[in-house]
Amino acid sequence: MSAAPTSPTPVLPFDPADPVALTQALVRCPSVTPEEGGALALLAAVLSAEGYDVHRPVFSEPGTPDVENLYARIGSTAPVFVIAGHTDVVPVGDEAAWTREPFGGAIENGTLYGRGACDMKGGLAAMVAAAIRYGRDNPDAPGSIAFLVTGDEEGPSVNGTVKLLAWAHERGERFDHCILGEPTNPATMSDMIKIGRRGSLTGKLTVQGTQGHVGYPHLADNPIRGMVRLLAALDATPLDGGTQHFDPSNLEVTTLDVGNPATNVIPAQAKAAFNIRFNDTWTPETLAAELERRLHEAAGNQVRYTLEVQPTNAVAFLTEPGPFVAIVADAIEAETGKRPALSTTGGTSDARFIKNYCPVVEYGVVGKTMHQIDESVAVADLVALERITHRLITSYFAAHRQA
Amino acid sequence: MSAAPTSPTPVLPFDPADPVALTQALVRCPSVTPEEGGALALLAAVLSAEGYDVHRPVFSEPGTPDVENLYARIGSTAPVFVIAGHTDVVPVGDEAAWTREPFGGAIENGTLYGRGACDMKGGLAAMVAAAIRYGRDNPDAPGSIAFLVTGDEEGPSVNGTVKLLAWAHERGERFDHCILGEPTNPATMSDMIKIGRRGSLTGKLTVQGTQGHVGYPHLADNPIRGMVRLLAALDATPLDGGTQHFDPSNLEVTTLDVGNPATNVIPAQAKAAFNIRFNDTWTPETLAAELERRLHEAAGNQVRYTLEVQPTNAVAFLTEPGPFVAIVADAIEAETGKRPALSTTGGTSDARFIKNYCPVVEYGVVGKTMHQIDESVAVADLVALERITHRLITSYFAAHRQA
Ligand SMILES: [Zn+2]
Ligand SMILES: [Zn+2]
Repeated sequence: MSAAPTSPTPVLPFDPADPVALTQALVRCPSVTPEEGGALALLAAVLSAEGYDVHRPVFSEPGTPDVENLYARIGSTAPVFVIAGHTDVVPVGDEAAWTREPFGGAIENGTLYGRGACDMKGGLAAMVAAAIRYGRDNPDAPGSIAFLVTGDEEGPSVNGTVKLLAWAHERGERFDHCILGEPTNPATMSDMIKIGRRGSLTGKLTVQGTQGHVGYPHLADNPIRGMVRLLAALDATPLDGGTQHFDPSNLEVTTLDVGNPATNVIPAQAKAAFNIRFNDTWTPETLAAELERRLHEAAGNQVRYTLEVQPTNAVAFLTEPGPFVAIVADAIEAETGKRPALSTTGGTSDARFIKNYCPVVEYGVVGKTMHQIDESVAVADLVALERITHRLITSYFAAHRQA
Repeated sequence: MSAAPTSPTPVLPFDPADPVALTQALVRCPSVTPEEGGALALLAAVLSAEGYDVHRPVFSEPGTPDVENLYARIGSTAPVFVIAGHTDVVPVGDEAAWTREPFGGAIENGTLYGRGACDMKGGLAAMVAAAIRYGRDNPDAPGSIAFLVTGDEEGPSVNGTVKLLAWAHERGERFDHCILGEPTNPATMSDMIKIGRRGSLTGKLTVQGTQGHVGYPHLADNPIRGMVRLLAALDATPLDGGTQHFDPSNLEVTTLDVGNPATNVIPAQAKAAFNIRFNDTWTPETLAAELERRLHEAAGNQVRYTLEVQPTNAVAFLTEPGPFVAIVADAIEAETGKRPALSTTGGTSDARFIKNYCPVVEYGVVGKTMHQIDESVAVADLVALERITHRLITSYFAAHRQA
């Protein structure tokens, strides 16, 4: 670490080493994706005051909104321990249904309410607080802590972490290990670390028929008949039986549309879309080939179809259990008394980008209310996560000193 | 027949006993359903001049347009031979694609062009012409000829033939046999008489699921999976193998809609509609019960679905081959040299209403271009149909005099 001021920045009315106060302050920033909403500015002020070198790159891409991001680092030597996260939140939804202000950060009976409370301002705040406490107590310790924070995780994820990583790499930044503070716990703080994620592949299937009158079916070719056959074939046998750390891959048809209002007309075309969450049995390429094989076989010479597989950067990945995963699990067990499960379930996250630069695990608060009305986080969980993260950082740098 | 004027009405610039001129005059009336367009007025004038007692009832029903109809009768004794038809036509469609005026009635190289030329102003005109010729030549013959003509066959079929039949029955009219002049021939005038029609049943199927995220399929229930299973079960085994005079019953799914734009969301509901053309194996009630049985079995305890079968008046019916069908087939064979097939294929027609009052067969011109751009009828076919109908009427009344 570098020599940093050891007292809180005087412009803030709270100590950012307090994870609860920092969560409240972040929740009060209306940073609905892609709006920055003051959240990154707040983090920049907090981290600068603690001696971090802070950057605020803005990334653009035609067809998507410009998005603000934050990169901050304290220390100039290896190892570089990265804390990653996002300050953007999903929209409030039906505001009238909220029983507390969505951007109020109110605390009642030990629960802090607000959009982003658990996904993931609470997790990020607890980790920032822990890093500040560690930095203040160990101003001269070797090694570095870096923050990768984006405002484009809940949006298209185009102008966020993926570009921030490339930008940092271009500047010569090299990362050793990363923790991403997404809310990984289903119910309690000792539930779950995520050590990988399944990949995601989206396909669009079109079956071409020949329009006609239902009274003269021999003059027509009903594409719905072919579509039902193809979809049944895609779903007939499991894609795989799962692997050591992964559930079986799973295909869900997400829509199916013909849009023919006339009940006496056989339609010309049927369209479907599907999404597959796949494990490390597959790459997007081998999976697409398997889909084509199943469709081709089921179609025979009778069903005229086209499959369009969308390009994906969501490949399946795994951070093999080893010393780094053990340090995280140890810290959780030491603070909660229970060892967390190592999981690869759920949706995709920015970890799929980070894993190209360094091993990454995900751990945060309890995600039960994420994206919902009255999203919330337990104050006790914020305190616990700050302690767990502080212990993790301490162990991490201690282990590297020993090595 | 009653004593009728034996000369054409002086207000018309053509002799209505000429099927070609009468077809042209009818085509020039823009009677796009439900518009009368002058077509029924023209027929009323023609038939009145020939001594028919003509009525023009207008029927109404909330939610549908008022529709004009025509009932005309000549003669006061049994048997009553009915000629049925419609003067309404389907819309022109893409008028720019027509190579002739849709309501011009132009004749080129022996073909008469225009909307309704074959469906079914040509058939109706040829039958009117034949009835006029027969009436003029046999002013004192026993028996009656009646015309049932509606302007609501291409529309909802609510204020047309079904009400015209009830209206006539209420007035004491009793019918012995009917010919409906729909274009039954696929390619030549000796191809096909229709002696029955399949029934039509429309159903709407809804599968209820539980919405969720594709990354957490165990927390959701994808209704598309259930829908594919139910639709496959409906189609898995034929409804029947056909009957003596009917093709097998046939089910076509006409639409399938989810409307979910998000490829990471498992939708809450899937909807489908289907239509069944069914033969005399089934009534609407027994068919609906069979569908419920198949769905119930395929759904097990897993698929939550609702089936809504729409009320239908399109039941399957058959006019058993016998003396009346033979008289029609004989007339066709005598004029064309070839005996027509007795068929029950195709869509529904107003014959499904007429069969409740008297045996009905359908026969008309070649229907190849019906409802299409550049709809047309061969002039030679109009002449042939006039001759066939004249022969049929003559044989019909001769047979009844002998009996
Ligand atoms: Zn998140
Ligand atoms: Zn018709």
